[in-house]
Amino acid sequence: MIGIQEIGSYIPSNRISNYDLKDKFEMDDNFIENKIGVQRVSRMLDGEDTSVMCVKAFNNLEQKIDIEKGEIECLILITQNPDSNIPHTSAVLHGLLDLPENCACFDVSLGCSGFVYGLSIIESFMQRNGMKKGLLFTSDPYSKIIDPEDKNTQILFGDGATVSLITDTPVYISGKYNFGTVGKEFKNLICTDNSLYMNGRGIFNFAARYVPKDIKQLLEKNELLIDDIDKFVFHQGSKYIIDTLIKRIGLEKEKVPFDIQDYGNTVSSSIPLIIEKEIKSNTNKMVAIGFGVGLSWASTILTKIN
Amino acid sequence: MIGIQEIGSYIPSNRISNYDLKDKFEMDDNFIENKIGVQRVSRMLDGEDTSVMCVKAFNNLEQKIDIEKGEIECLILITQNPDSNIPHTSAVLHGLLDLPENCACFDVSLGCSGFVYGLSIIESFMQRNGMKKGLLFTSDPYSKIIDPEDKNTQILFGDGATVSLITDTPVYISGKYNFGTVGKEFKNLICTDNSLYMNGRGIFNFAARYVPKDIKQLLEKNELLIDDIDKFVFHQGSKYIIDTLIKRIGLEKEKVPFDIQDYGNTVSSSIPLIIEKEIKSNTNKMVAIGFGVGLSWASTILTKIN
Repeated sequence: MIGIQEIGSYIPSNRISNYDLKDKFEMDDNFIENKIGVQRVSRMLDGEDTSVMCVKAFNNLEQKIDIEKGEIECLILITQNPDSNIPHTSAVLHGLLDLPENCACFDVSLGCSGFVYGLSIIESFMQRNGMKKGLLFTSDPYSKIIDPEDKNTQILFGDGATVSLITDTPVYISGKYNFGTVGKEFKNLICTDNSLYMNGRGIFNFAARYVPKDIKQLLEKNELLIDDIDKFVFHQGSKYIIDTLIKRIGLEKEKVPFDIQDYGNTVSSSIPLIIEKEIKSNTNKMVAIGFGVGLSWASTILTKIN
Repeated sequence: MIGIQEIGSYIPSNRISNYDLKDKFEMDDNFIENKIGVQRVSRMLDGEDTSVMCVKAFNNLEQKIDIEKGEIECLILITQNPDSNIPHTSAVLHGLLDLPENCACFDVSLGCSGFVYGLSIIESFMQRNGMKKGLLFTSDPYSKIIDPEDKNTQILFGDGATVSLITDTPVYISGKYNFGTVGKEFKNLICTDNSLYMNGRGIFNFAARYVPKDIKQLLEKNELLIDDIDKFVFHQGSKYIIDTLIKRIGLEKEKVPFDIQDYGNTVSSSIPLIIEKEIKSNTNKMVAIGFGVGLSWASTILTKIN
């Protein structure tokens, strides 16, 4: 059985405070604290890039658990902002981490649904190919494509990276997955000429419409009831979307973590940043669901077995 | 058992003849015909992009086999030249092809090793998630990043796309896979500032060193002898690399297809373009091996079961 054994992360120390932008973007404390729920956004330091943030997340992982690099057979990076389009950044990372030559490496291009998708991709790939130790990275620095004058995105997205150690001695294992795509609505979140555009209202409507329906299906597929779930780990889009989902699905607020006040929406890193804190917890069953770019979503159940 | 049932393809009709560039690039007929083995390179037509080439490959597939679009549960696109970095081009394609909402879509960033990697990724992902029908696309138009003044790349790479229909009623199924990465050598094939750079000699040395070794390992892993293999489908890098591999491994020339004279090296599409012609053949066992960007490689055995 392949699953998540440990998670390491890295969030750059560099921050921009949204309180400093109140006049510029005509917003008040209530908007910052209760609507978007992001007080400061993290930004990469000089000299950092997608791969470098991954190396720093890996260093953090190594502080938590001994890793024999020679045993790593697989490395997958979820990103839509790689160091460059050629080569895949996972290959650059392979070199930086000095991993063995028989290590399979590839990038997967997905946004906010990327971690949950990536978990299914790495688990199934490792299982089919008889692999026992792999690394699933997320690193999608939107600061590379954000126009600082664009309120919609500048005050929301933060840079960060995570790495999940995927092994045959896991702490959390996944159940059945649900995946979905509404490709016809892709224009709500796009990058053109190296500049990000987000139709916040479009993304909000998409999430509010599809996520409750998906969770119902997911629970049925896994033969679980909503009360069997200890935590609902949503992609940390904004406080407003999380609060809306809590209301629409009828969840207990304490079962739904929201924890991005200090760094922002880190795209595919937002879910593993929450799960990281659960590795040593007693949380038995979690729903994890990512949604956004594509538009797309992916969900699964994580069960503690160790 | 999940495998390849059919393959469709698209190569743009637009061509540049290398014979017209003989003076400019100081090359003779022997170089064109026997060294690189590419007489003309294909180039996308006005209005085409990565996704549009995929749609045209899909149209070709539909001419060969009836496809119930509502049954497609998974769409993976191998590319390092997507329409844009956000969203993943597979989502755009999902919309263009009018696929169902429960269809999982993602892009995988890999170059010349991408088709073989992608085959393992889609097979394992579909199997783990109980899916029966999927589409594996390759579309990596290097013309988007080639400097027409750069002889190394301008005369070699052609645009094209393929789509493999992956189902539980396959014609070819894969055996065990081998994967490898030498991330420290990634600088031999990179794209910076939207411009491709290739150290042809570096890539050649890499392939000549790693491919023979990998094929030996692959055959052992699959408990096969070299004489059990009817065809060796190498990534179609250039005539010179294919001829070198034939010599170094000691293969019969007629077992090794080379067929890119009329369109060039189409990156991850080069292998499925060869396999496409084998679907209706009596070829029982093939080695498929891709190698390049990363630097990386991937190989497997394809066995006809239908």
